[in-house]
Amino acid sequence: MNLKDLDTISIIGLGLLGGSLGLAVNRIFPQVKRLGFSHRMVTRDKALEAGTVDHVFSSIKDSVRNSQLVILASPIGTFASIMDEMADALPDGCLVTDVGSTKTLPARWAREKLPKRVQFLGSHPMAGSEQRGVDYARADLFDDAYCIITPTAAVKPHTTAFLRDFWTQLRMHVCQLTPRIHDQVLARISHLPHMLAVALVNCSDTLEILMCGKGFLDTTRIASGPESIWRDIVCSNPDNIDAAIARLIKELTRIRKALQHGDDRVILDILTEARVKRNNLVEKKLQRKELPV
Amino acid sequence: MNLKDLDTISIIGLGLLGGSLGLAVNRIFPQVKRLGFSHRMVTRDKALEAGTVDHVFSSIKDSVRNSQLVILASPIGTFASIMDEMADALPDGCLVTDVGSTKTLPARWAREKLPKRVQFLGSHPMAGSEQRGVDYARADLFDDAYCIITPTAAVKPHTTAFLRDFWTQLRMHVCQLTPRIHDQVLARISHLPHMLAVALVNCSDTLEILMCGKGFLDTTRIASGPESIWRDIVCSNPDNIDAAIARLIKELTRIRKALQHGDDRVILDILTEARVKRNNLVEKKLQRKELPV
Repeated sequence: MNLKDLDTISIIGLGLLGGSLGLAVNRIFPQVKRLGFSHRMVTRDKALEAGTVDHVFSSIKDSVRNSQLVILASPIGTFASIMDEMADALPDGCLVTDVGSTKTLPARWAREKLPKRVQFLGSHPMAGSEQRGVDYARADLFDDAYCIITPTAAVKPHTTAFLRDFWTQLRMHVCQLTPRIHDQVLARISHLPHMLAVALVNCSDTLEILMCGKGFLDTTRIASGPESIWRDIVCSNPDNIDAAIARLIKELTRIRKALQHGDDRVILDILTEARVKRNNLVEKKLQRKELPV
Repeated sequence: MNLKDLDTISIIGLGLLGGSLGLAVNRIFPQVKRLGFSHRMVTRDKALEAGTVDHVFSSIKDSVRNSQLVILASPIGTFASIMDEMADALPDGCLVTDVGSTKTLPARWAREKLPKRVQFLGSHPMAGSEQRGVDYARADLFDDAYCIITPTAAVKPHTTAFLRDFWTQLRMHVCQLTPRIHDQVLARISHLPHMLAVALVNCSDTLEILMCGKGFLDTTRIASGPESIWRDIVCSNPDNIDAAIARLIKELTRIRKALQHGDDRVILDILTEARVKRNNLVEKKLQRKELPV
């Protein structure tokens, strides 16, 4: 299928990501009919009112029956049962993708639960915030962010090309990784920072942090993210996150040794290494227009 | 001395903090003459041009000779030699304070190096950014932030009252801690987050983090801070920071155990604990107008 032939999509789950996706699709592909599913009536009403989709359904089957592209935008923990439920209703040749933050388990579930007459190819649009819910949906949530798609050997090249094109049109930088590599990398660049922020909040004293400055608040911002969504992410990638935390503890231990030995020179080197590395990162992101100037 | 009798202050070091202090003093106490010292000519010229002080000096002695209040705003590592240099030139009854991020060593140096005819009382205005230098100085840098003053038994009550009043007028929330307690608390709420951000950057792969999202960037923002200033902070508070890192590693180990045991319920509890605790913190800071709404 070519992107210009796309006429109907279904978004399963109308929270921050699903709602924003509906708004973005409407901005870029105004001709595409957007069908949405949520199990909660209040969410369906809000999603419709905010214009995130054109029609809402309380039945997953009904919401996917006529779609060429089905996008799972609910918490990862719901994917397996949603796939079970939609399997028979998916039309032939339909492409199923998702926006989950881990990719190995969703790919396995798709292999086990979806019929051969449809394709599954995972996506991870790396956008979001610590807010949740359709109230925070924004048409520009995905602009200039990365989207990692994770084709396996079973995915046809033109399907990969189609999905690449879809996210690129939605103003994302698309790259490809295998599900396994995706989960390793994301453990280190996303799940580790999250668990670090969580650990910092939890090891802190409630009264002491009332005096904290902006540094503490920024460092811990992501710890305000919704726990049910993050539980699903973390628990679908435990080994990689465990290894990433171990790597961080090793680095923290290097700092402790320098402190214990009063080795000011090593402390300076460690601080310099971090500043240079982070400033290079910010500069590259500015050059690529991935950050506001 | 009463605040209304204050007519001349000296700011030693005209970087982000010293420059901002000069601008803030001018806004709140326009009648006060502001003298500034920097050892670099280019900084003196810029500081004068930006209106951060009224006069600049290249000699510490000359810059403090006629001041009632002398504020050290240079890196902590320079305090001991500055105190040595200024000791004889300080006028009788002068109050010396500083804006350093650790308070035990500055208080000890003051005891050893300053004459009995002057008072020393440390301050820690908890404002700043990852930027450095007088170019980033802003009159509102201190607005609504905390300032911790750290009186010891040797400090006269009216001196404490005077300094409290000074920072309060500069729109800061002032609280008092002993230097020892200050350094313990700050290790946990400020120095730990800093070293954590540094460790996260340093343990990350340069290419992988090019794909990172806003979470990684926010969590590591403070790692872009100037290494020489942070070396001085960290190396003047090593034992407390070491203990704080140990506490964090314990919390990270709790997370690792839950991951290794596949204990999703514990992961959910840990995530919930952090979200609730941080959201309460943000709410309290909003109520106290310490954060922009």
